[in-house]
Amino acid sequence: MTGSPSPGRLWLIPTPLGETADPRLCLPPDTFAIASRLHYFIAENARSARAFLKQLDLDRPIQQIEIRELSEHTQAAELPGLLAPILAGQDAGLVSEAGCPAVADPGAALVALAHQHRVPIHPLIGPSAILLALMASGLGGQAFAFVGYLPQPPDARLQAVRALEQRSVCSGETILMIETPYRNQAIFEALLSGLSGDCRLMVASSLTLPDQLIRTERVADWRASPVQLARVPTVFGMVAPGQTRTTKERYRPR
Amino acid sequence: MTGSPSPGRLWLIPTPLGETADPRLCLPPDTFAIASRLHYFIAENARSARAFLKQLDLDRPIQQIEIRELSEHTQAAELPGLLAPILAGQDAGLVSEAGCPAVADPGAALVALAHQHRVPIHPLIGPSAILLALMASGLGGQAFAFVGYLPQPPDARLQAVRALEQRSVCSGETILMIETPYRNQAIFEALLSGLSGDCRLMVASSLTLPDQLIRTERVADWRASPVQLARVPTVFGMVAPGQTRTTKERYRPR
Repeated sequence: MTGSPSPGRLWLIPTPLGETADPRLCLPPDTFAIASRLHYFIAENARSARAFLKQLDLDRPIQQIEIRELSEHTQAAELPGLLAPILAGQDAGLVSEAGCPAVADPGAALVALAHQHRVPIHPLIGPSAILLALMASGLGGQAFAFVGYLPQPPDARLQAVRALEQRSVCSGETILMIETPYRNQAIFEALLSGLSGDCRLMVASSLTLPDQLIRTERVADWRASPVQLARVPTVFGMVAPGQTRTTKERYRPR
Repeated sequence: MTGSPSPGRLWLIPTPLGETADPRLCLPPDTFAIASRLHYFIAENARSARAFLKQLDLDRPIQQIEIRELSEHTQAAELPGLLAPILAGQDAGLVSEAGCPAVADPGAALVALAHQHRVPIHPLIGPSAILLALMASGLGGQAFAFVGYLPQPPDARLQAVRALEQRSVCSGETILMIETPYRNQAIFEALLSGLSGDCRLMVASSLTLPDQLIRTERVADWRASPVQLARVPTVFGMVAPGQTRTTKERYRPR
């Protein structure tokens, strides 16, 4: 461990799910206040982090706030350098491109290293598209999995979709996934063609934003009235038939 | 579908993770304001919902606010009755005992029925112990699963723990679970005895509260300095060795 007797704290700071969302309205006052007083940030994307910081009540000019990047291109060997100011006693904020850091982004590697050095970790409350989508889906939140991105080659993607249905049949889990916005339509069509008609499928786009769209339908019903998805951040969710349940009994819609 | 031309909206309202947490500080102003103006709530537990509502800026006496329960004992046949006021045009709030509704509680059955009737669903931002634990764990949030409760009989529980490790080995997933507070120690010991020494194990208790505890260690290190867990709400998480990764490369702590 590095010199200083007691390290700073690592604050995990959620950010709004779109540039038009006002952090003062969509973050709890506690989160907003803590983010406003930090001077060192580790960000998935420095540019979007700067745009976020400009909307806070910073106690110094933004030029005096240090922002370093931890992206998918960051090597493991670079992590100790990112942690060093914290070990030297400075508090830091970890921010994702949008939503919660260390969820569906590369931030967990830094949190893991922080744990090894006994840095106090403070997760803060704020928006997560994955969680909001799960809540709104009605697909069941007693057991769920987030699988990230599906494979891109059409054959492999279709195979993955079928494997997810099989998994949901066996485990009863709701399964959530995301995709790069310009591939929304491709993944949606793969889900419609690969899943059984009785599966329920959710599309949740632009969560918390003015163009928010949340719709859950049986796959057969989606097929009967298909839609064209916008190229905006979207969470997809599915569950095999008969899986929504309360603890003591199963509820089968329709 | 019932009479009225346009249904009310179903708002999914997160609640603080403990009675001592102030909703004004831990909920975003948007969530606080919307919860404050609703007159019909569907709650996992009417008593805790009432305690929550008393901390809001209600526009009428709490006695005039209707609270109905949707708990693990609610039968599927009772759901249409809970939805009826919404179909008649009234807005409603769905609240869990603590945290986010329709996640690790029976609320999803009502959301599913609301989707069938084309009720607009609005998930709101707020605390989730499961999500905060995942962020703070450092175990990896690129792929994760929440499995709820483990079996209670010791043999079955140990077998389940071993199956979870196997699953994490195969899928690379971080696996999260919860337990009733008085069984924290039992599940913790089952995890310590059933998992390989190289697995990483997180204990996250009393999240967002003054006695918050968040610790991630290799199982071997936990065994070397075991702790006695308090009987407070706790999320457990584990991941098999070598699974924390960024998108492009794997990061292996130590």
